[in-house]
Amino acid sequence: MSLQIIPIKTQKEIGLDANLVDLILESSEINDGDILVFSQKIVSKNEGRVLSLSSVNPSLLANGIASSYGKDPRLVELILSESKRIVRMENGIIIVETKHGFVCANAGIDESNVQDGYATLLPDDPDKSANLLKDRIEQKTGKNIAVIISDTFGRPFRLGQTNVAIGIAGLEPILDYNGKPDTFGKIMQVTAIAIADEICSASELVMGKVQKCPIVIVRNYNFSSSDAKIQKMLRSDHDDLFR
Amino acid sequence: MSLQIIPIKTQKEIGLDANLVDLILESSEINDGDILVFSQKIVSKNEGRVLSLSSVNPSLLANGIASSYGKDPRLVELILSESKRIVRMENGIIIVETKHGFVCANAGIDESNVQDGYATLLPDDPDKSANLLKDRIEQKTGKNIAVIISDTFGRPFRLGQTNVAIGIAGLEPILDYNGKPDTFGKIMQVTAIAIADEICSASELVMGKVQKCPIVIVRNYNFSSSDAKIQKMLRSDHDDLFR
Repeated sequence: MSLQIIPIKTQKEIGLDANLVDLILESSEINDGDILVFSQKIVSKNEGRVLSLSSVNPSLLANGIASSYGKDPRLVELILSESKRIVRMENGIIIVETKHGFVCANAGIDESNVQDGYATLLPDDPDKSANLLKDRIEQKTGKNIAVIISDTFGRPFRLGQTNVAIGIAGLEPILDYNGKPDTFGKIMQVTAIAIADEICSASELVMGKVQKCPIVIVRNYNFSSSDAKIQKMLRSDHDDLFR
Repeated sequence: MSLQIIPIKTQKEIGLDANLVDLILESSEINDGDILVFSQKIVSKNEGRVLSLSSVNPSLLANGIASSYGKDPRLVELILSESKRIVRMENGIIIVETKHGFVCANAGIDESNVQDGYATLLPDDPDKSANLLKDRIEQKTGKNIAVIISDTFGRPFRLGQTNVAIGIAGLEPILDYNGKPDTFGKIMQVTAIAIADEICSASELVMGKVQKCPIVIVRNYNFSSSDAKIQKMLRSDHDDLFR
């Protein structure tokens, strides 16, 4: 059976008062087993994680970093305030570990697709955001679904960014083949697929950056139900050869 | 319009004599604009990039690494022979830069889904493999398509592997938004999406590891035609903060 990646488009600008569940139901039905993928930006906007840069008072450190990097000191202040560790700071690039544990540029803060002079921050607790959306959709539709919140991260070694999961609700994010036989009956080792990230990447192909498509339905993917948290996808510092 | 990710399954074991184009046409039609994604393994098997470990004579260095890592010295010998640089070698993990320029574990060599005592190597020139497949499919069907060869790589920071592109034919692998306006008219910077990798990740969701699905059709994705090579997706050593 084919997998379907279905875009949910909207012309509306999403604010605190928007009802994301109604937004979906206006343009599509939900089936049992659907996975709903939300862009980080729509969730952040809906949760009020949008800050006016004029409200930010940069620290001495933020001013120092900003001046040597040619960045806006208020943006640097926001990045530092959302981070628990600076992983790399070179060539004008700031890679941090966010308070959630994500290793990404600028703590996931950005100024695209938001009003001039404002920046969006990642949701405070993206798993909680995903669970709230899941509950509301399930209550309204009576269907069993999963929810993923997706953001666009760069990566080492390869050029271009891809979408990955930053919050999950209702699905097992890793498909672990360890100990299972391959097609020759040989027991597989070290094979564990980050399916939640792959689902986000698949969704990005229709979500895009300028298509006004903040939500995607992934249909016909047979996932395992789970209460797993996004933490399960994050490599610990100790197991990471590149941190 | 929804994106469709269509699996092509086969019960046949693929060897040097297999005709991959016929294999596809047995179970599916091809449309103009389809992207055909092939697993690295089926391409390697079809090109004879399968080696009997008993034919390998490990060097002194391969024996040394193998004994301290608890690995098969013949496998280590193969890894070294396919690599131009060792990027990390710790905790029993060998991350190299392959002769093609991919940074991955074990130079992409593995022993799963192949006869016991054998290992598969990456295609010698995956872009060439992709172009050959593209030409043969286009000649046989009269349709314009693109081809991607896909493999499963781990990554820093996050657990679980995802599929990425190792060879491409006929499509622009990066969708570059730099200099384009966002939905607020603001000019975007540093946004460039690795769509070829995202297409591989989307395909992996139906390809799996035990589903006997070595080929996937991605339909309704509006890609830009291009003669670009996979090199375009590889971050140079100089621009990489993590090498």
